[in-house]
Amino acid sequence: MTKGRVCLAYSGGLDTSTILKWLINEGYEVVAFLADVGQEEDFVAVEKKALALGAKKMVIWNLQKLFVEEIVHKAIQCNAIYEDRYLLGTSLARPIIARAQVKAAEENDCQYVSHGCTGKGNDQVRFELAFAACNPGLKVIAPWRMPEFIAKFKGRQDLLKYAAENNIPVSSTPKAPWSMDDNLVHCSYEAGVLEDPDHTPPKELWTRTIDPQDAPNKPYEFSIYFEKGIPVKVVTEDKKEVTDSLELFKLLNKIGHDHGVGRVDIVENRFIGLKSRGCYDTPGLTIARLAHIDLEGLVLDSKVRELRDQFVTQAWSRQLYNGMYFTPEREFVEVALVASQKNVTGVVRMAVYRGNAYVLGRSSDASNLYSQEDASMDSLEGFSPEDTSGFIAIQGKRLDQTDLSILTGTAIRLKKFGLQKRKDGEPLTQ
Amino acid sequence: MTKGRVCLAYSGGLDTSTILKWLINEGYEVVAFLADVGQEEDFVAVEKKALALGAKKMVIWNLQKLFVEEIVHKAIQCNAIYEDRYLLGTSLARPIIARAQVKAAEENDCQYVSHGCTGKGNDQVRFELAFAACNPGLKVIAPWRMPEFIAKFKGRQDLLKYAAENNIPVSSTPKAPWSMDDNLVHCSYEAGVLEDPDHTPPKELWTRTIDPQDAPNKPYEFSIYFEKGIPVKVVTEDKKEVTDSLELFKLLNKIGHDHGVGRVDIVENRFIGLKSRGCYDTPGLTIARLAHIDLEGLVLDSKVRELRDQFVTQAWSRQLYNGMYFTPEREFVEVALVASQKNVTGVVRMAVYRGNAYVLGRSSDASNLYSQEDASMDSLEGFSPEDTSGFIAIQGKRLDQTDLSILTGTAIRLKKFGLQKRKDGEPLTQ
Amino acid sequence: MTKGRVCLAYSGGLDTSTILKWLINEGYEVVAFLADVGQEEDFVAVEKKALALGAKKMVIWNLQKLFVEEIVHKAIQCNAIYEDRYLLGTSLARPIIARAQVKAAEENDCQYVSHGCTGKGNDQVRFELAFAACNPGLKVIAPWRMPEFIAKFKGRQDLLKYAAENNIPVSSTPKAPWSMDDNLVHCSYEAGVLEDPDHTPPKELWTRTIDPQDAPNKPYEFSIYFEKGIPVKVVTEDKKEVTDSLELFKLLNKIGHDHGVGRVDIVENRFIGLKSRGCYDTPGLTIARLAHIDLEGLVLDSKVRELRDQFVTQAWSRQLYNGMYFTPEREFVEVALVASQKNVTGVVRMAVYRGNAYVLGRSSDASNLYSQEDASMDSLEGFSPEDTSGFIAIQGKRLDQTDLSILTGTAIRLKKFGLQKRKDGEPLTQ
Amino acid sequence: MTKGRVCLAYSGGLDTSTILKWLINEGYEVVAFLADVGQEEDFVAVEKKALALGAKKMVIWNLQKLFVEEIVHKAIQCNAIYEDRYLLGTSLARPIIARAQVKAAEENDCQYVSHGCTGKGNDQVRFELAFAACNPGLKVIAPWRMPEFIAKFKGRQDLLKYAAENNIPVSSTPKAPWSMDDNLVHCSYEAGVLEDPDHTPPKELWTRTIDPQDAPNKPYEFSIYFEKGIPVKVVTEDKKEVTDSLELFKLLNKIGHDHGVGRVDIVENRFIGLKSRGCYDTPGLTIARLAHIDLEGLVLDSKVRELRDQFVTQAWSRQLYNGMYFTPEREFVEVALVASQKNVTGVVRMAVYRGNAYVLGRSSDASNLYSQEDASMDSLEGFSPEDTSGFIAIQGKRLDQTDLSILTGTAIRLKKFGLQKRKDGEPLTQ
Repeated sequence: MTKGRVCLAYSGGLDTSTILKWLINEGYEVVAFLADVGQEEDFVAVEKKALALGAKKMVIWNLQKLFVEEIVHKAIQCNAIYEDRYLLGTSLARPIIARAQVKAAEENDCQYVSHGCTGKGNDQVRFELAFAACNPGLKVIAPWRMPEFIAKFKGRQDLLKYAAENNIPVSSTPKAPWSMDDNLVHCSYEAGVLEDPDHTPPKELWTRTIDPQDAPNKPYEFSIYFEKGIPVKVVTEDKKEVTDSLELFKLLNKIGHDHGVGRVDIVENRFIGLKSRGCYDTPGLTIARLAHIDLEGLVLDSKVRELRDQFVTQAWSRQLYNGMYFTPEREFVEVALVASQKNVTGVVRMAVYRGNAYVLGRSSDASNLYSQEDASMDSLEGFSPEDTSGFIAIQGKRLDQTDLSILTGTAIRLKKFGLQKRKDGEPLTQ
Repeated sequence: MTKGRVCLAYSGGLDTSTILKWLINEGYEVVAFLADVGQEEDFVAVEKKALALGAKKMVIWNLQKLFVEEIVHKAIQCNAIYEDRYLLGTSLARPIIARAQVKAAEENDCQYVSHGCTGKGNDQVRFELAFAACNPGLKVIAPWRMPEFIAKFKGRQDLLKYAAENNIPVSSTPKAPWSMDDNLVHCSYEAGVLEDPDHTPPKELWTRTIDPQDAPNKPYEFSIYFEKGIPVKVVTEDKKEVTDSLELFKLLNKIGHDHGVGRVDIVENRFIGLKSRGCYDTPGLTIARLAHIDLEGLVLDSKVRELRDQFVTQAWSRQLYNGMYFTPEREFVEVALVASQKNVTGVVRMAVYRGNAYVLGRSSDASNLYSQEDASMDSLEGFSPEDTSGFIAIQGKRLDQTDLSILTGTAIRLKKFGLQKRKDGEPLTQ
Repeated sequence: MTKGRVCLAYSGGLDTSTILKWLINEGYEVVAFLADVGQEEDFVAVEKKALALGAKKMVIWNLQKLFVEEIVHKAIQCNAIYEDRYLLGTSLARPIIARAQVKAAEENDCQYVSHGCTGKGNDQVRFELAFAACNPGLKVIAPWRMPEFIAKFKGRQDLLKYAAENNIPVSSTPKAPWSMDDNLVHCSYEAGVLEDPDHTPPKELWTRTIDPQDAPNKPYEFSIYFEKGIPVKVVTEDKKEVTDSLELFKLLNKIGHDHGVGRVDIVENRFIGLKSRGCYDTPGLTIARLAHIDLEGLVLDSKVRELRDQFVTQAWSRQLYNGMYFTPEREFVEVALVASQKNVTGVVRMAVYRGNAYVLGRSSDASNLYSQEDASMDSLEGFSPEDTSGFIAIQGKRLDQTDLSILTGTAIRLKKFGLQKRKDGEPLTQ
Repeated sequence: MTKGRVCLAYSGGLDTSTILKWLINEGYEVVAFLADVGQEEDFVAVEKKALALGAKKMVIWNLQKLFVEEIVHKAIQCNAIYEDRYLLGTSLARPIIARAQVKAAEENDCQYVSHGCTGKGNDQVRFELAFAACNPGLKVIAPWRMPEFIAKFKGRQDLLKYAAENNIPVSSTPKAPWSMDDNLVHCSYEAGVLEDPDHTPPKELWTRTIDPQDAPNKPYEFSIYFEKGIPVKVVTEDKKEVTDSLELFKLLNKIGHDHGVGRVDIVENRFIGLKSRGCYDTPGLTIARLAHIDLEGLVLDSKVRELRDQFVTQAWSRQLYNGMYFTPEREFVEVALVASQKNVTGVVRMAVYRGNAYVLGRSSDASNLYSQEDASMDSLEGFSPEDTSGFIAIQGKRLDQTDLSILTGTAIRLKKFGLQKRKDGEPLTQ
């Protein structure tokens, strides 16, 4: 008689294969689940292995487009970043994966969900909080926090021994001396030799970006078109033009990859209170984020930007890092995020060159905030009342004073706001 | 030949009567404008006076309900407050008045708007920024910042002399030794003897609240019903029941008035960098704000509240105080404000007594966040998995630890969030 | 052979008496510890009971003055408040108690510290985080989170049964239908009948404040003197004058008590993610906080205040509520707090009357920020350059414009800053 | 008879030479002032020109080291940045220049200070607010905001005509089609052809950095040593070792210059409400900021960092950008900034390559926050109590649960805090 059915997040690796077998040995039925969020993986082989190990079923869902449109676009819209450096690659994918796992559990009548996260990392938190919100009735089996499991598997040797005893195939490829996690957005490298924060990552570590020294010795130019803060078209110097959300992001990844853009190497603060060292290569998102920030300079109101930077960017980024996606506070913050982006429409021309991404220029028809004439230092026109008759008669020398004062600076900003509203058919006096 | 037409904010007092006459003497046509935002005023007398002084027209608009529904309700929803004490009474009315004045100017073909604000106060900023946004083409005549006007009117004596010379009727009632500004929300008292911040306001100063010592020696009870953060019904112990937005707010004003609720006496920081001393009595809004904060304790998610407090409450309050109502940043913040209020629905039972307002109890059907059973210190049920079979078998002593840990605290919050979503027909896995 | 020595936070009540006995029965030696932070308690009786139950020792330390000077004064300086209503009474005392318990453990060679907090409240977190920081080597025994203890004591009946079997004396006074926690600052009332948030607290609940209806029908006046944000003297209308920090705070408590000041009844968000209903009476701190906020209006720079409100007040209050006193972040925030208070020196005249505290006036010699002359609406002097010769010749009508502009508003603030620095012997150009 | 004496900020260029002459023609005596903050300038020629034009005196002060130690170091400590991109180069130098100009005015008995800033830029604000604070008695002559001056000089042609009439030498070098401002930290490029935000800056524009394509095709390695957040030593791969604050910063500038590091091209929001386009090359500070952020990852407590990022970094950066250096709020924020840096001591190994700066590794003896063992995913040791005897007997399987929970995450952080305090001889229980 079975203890119940478990939906296990299964990657095909040694850890989750061991867990799969161990759950079966403990008396559970197992439905293995794998989300395709753009990682490098032989999905057919994973399915075959799961079934061979005794899984009742292997569920593999391609969630790449959903990932881009629901999460990556939001990350771009809010210039998401953690501790000034990390573009959140792993955390961005977690909500998509965890929610899908819950759906897979529901569709397959599972009472349990299980994962192979360790007890010292961020991911256990991200998964379990997502499970709790998405289906409060599901129970979680987290073997790496269970005393009996930990007691049994004290190190890699124990896993290999169990694999041998239970006919779990073990890859003959030697394991890299660090652990990796990848998806459409990035690949992360942690642990092993990287635990020494003064150990420089070796050249062969990076998988998503070419070494800048090996990149073409010539800039490559392209333009990103945004609508309401979302990239909707990329046109390259060699006339590629892509508009599909997923293909567009893959193209940015390829551009970044080929020119070595998007590597960071940091020590970060994990949610659970420890510091850890991580290296990440994030080619496409690095480029998209830079372009988006640049366009906001042109079209976003200064005070909206200040509030958005303080409130939305920090809050959303931390929420994602900390696994707080399925929360009222993330929904609350996103309402404001979307509201901030209504005029973030325009084109950013860019170049990449040996590890760098540069902005070459930007333009937009969506906003009246930037005006060459206003900004000009050479001309004082536009600050003076157009119609000076009568006005001057009363106010004498006033125009230059009030109109050049800070009050007027604010007033100019608000006049533009009022004019834009009128142009949009929504005059403030309506 | 006229210099043009001016829409002047006209109150009927000595200052604006002088400005009205002076503008005419300078060669302008004047349309006088007065917004009824609930202040004590003999509107018929004001109209008569304006026309007698030579105004082409007197425009008086009753904006009380608009004021309540557009602004006062937002102030309640965000618990608006400035520097911990001031409920913003004057600033709340300014956008309503200024926008209406622009409309009156437009409807009466004026090229100018004018006001009688002094050059040291907040109100000049509030009015002029609103004018700039609402109609960037209108020109502003601010006599109290014009050298020729200031040179002519150095003090009250000059005004009285000018009045005598120009047949401006002057009230025979002796002027109070302070200045006042009132509307539906409050009355403010400033300047004069109050400029000494250690001068206690005399008993007769307060107009909107009875002295607590003269109030009934018995609490008076009533209930306020909220929907999405807005008061929609008040029921009193003597069976009054009011639902009309304006009548409801007036009833709260009357309750507060009769029981002496809502007086503050502070030194505040004006927008323009000076400190000033102000006394305010704000009966109804003081009560409504307290009830709203109390209800939020029951129904608002803790993290949404924390973000809303840091971001929305501070920002919206400052924006209103500083005259930044017609701005992209206020619109931005209000989107978040409204989003925060979707579950703020319920009833707060209150009492007032000699200067105090107390909450007696609160209830709501709109939120699952408060649960007597969960909160109970006596029972540990509800924290344990309901179905322990199988689970316990694997997890041993785990339940008490994880389930009582902080992780679980968060998990409980998120489980409730997920359950509420399911109840609302919007499961997170949809 | 003993399992070791435990320092147990012991109050003399049924819960901690049971734990004391149970620990002994489990094989530990117990040193009982009780901090006197101003609660109502028969300390002699507690000691007698502990020793009778088998404690090796009863340690009772009077920490009242330390509590006031280290924590309460900081709470006053930062206007500490949680969720707009709660003055943090319980949380303020916890760090003082927990650190002393660690010292008692160290002095008495204990390897363990133990407490009787339940697994659903804030206090377990506050105590255990303080233990972790103050002595990372001590181990914590938290019986109410231990499966074997919970299994044994499922409800009050089990406690009474165990008491009977183990000769634990049980008070014959019937237990109040709610739980209470008191210290110098406040008394809290929670649980029991109060778990229904719509159940009005009965008149007899409140212990620290008289019912406002029973208070004298006449205001009572007194003055609070502050130095750098700390109350240093109180003088009352009947000529009491107190300067000792502890006596001063007790006097404010008495004034508040006698006039019914400082009751709140709220639903709050506990740290661990649950909402709970609490009633608190906090007489002295309510008065001191109001006076302090008022004085800051007079003497604190507007921008420093804005930053302090956003940053220090919110952060420090949450840190205390969440048990994060012994943390780098609390130390960090307190550096800024103390820096903000250097000019918060002056006198606030106040009155209390039947539940209310009012400010009657305030004065200070420590700051040049408030100036009656500057603030005056009647005079425009002081805004004009004193010496107009030459200047005017060039600048014509300029003075009124620039000097009354926002730029000037800021400039005035900064001129005062520069003048104060010169007066203080620290000119900015030095 | 003279109208008085003016201390004029004089650069030797056409604008300030015209103002110098015009002031003399208007009847003033002029003391010309020039601060050496590291800009490219022929100081001897400037002095000669000023005196030739009739200045009573030319004051030139070398403030480079003061600039680095008072301001640049603070910018590094707080990772200062404006709108995500701009490292504030121009704004950093302004307080140093303005304060020195006030001192020069005082030493030379001037009643006036004057500058050549236009009425649409940020710098007028920065200078005048600094003047107001540093010496509230000095009067400001801002010709570009004076009607008579503007009326006379409507464009460059009028300046050239006036120069010809008044024997003002005009450089024969053709003016660059943009304006520049440089100091030790950066060179800015604005206006002219750059006013079209879609006009890519030409290759010859940049003066402080070589084109990345022309940089060496090989990374260059060096290490930066920090003490309390300040760079105190740089050691390069070719064995240069520099410790002098000014020389060190110049070396970072040279490294950045030679490898093309630190270019940005943005549209930013000026203080006065307009948007403008600016290009900046900031080699040394770009490198120093990156290294500092990296080191903070290793040694700064996570919560202190979060508060510092939200509060100090944003506030200080905006204060500097907006000319609010001589303010109580900047002093307030800096107290917190300095407090945050007490453990930011260690070494960062870096490389630059063709436009990029990379971190290769970092180490520190000053902090116990990073621990390879703790962070390790492979080992669960260190999470378990070292001494399990007795403890385990009571708590059974507890250790893995509590110790791996979020509570424990926090507890671990606080245990390290407590241990560090003990190591520092300041135990929390003292």
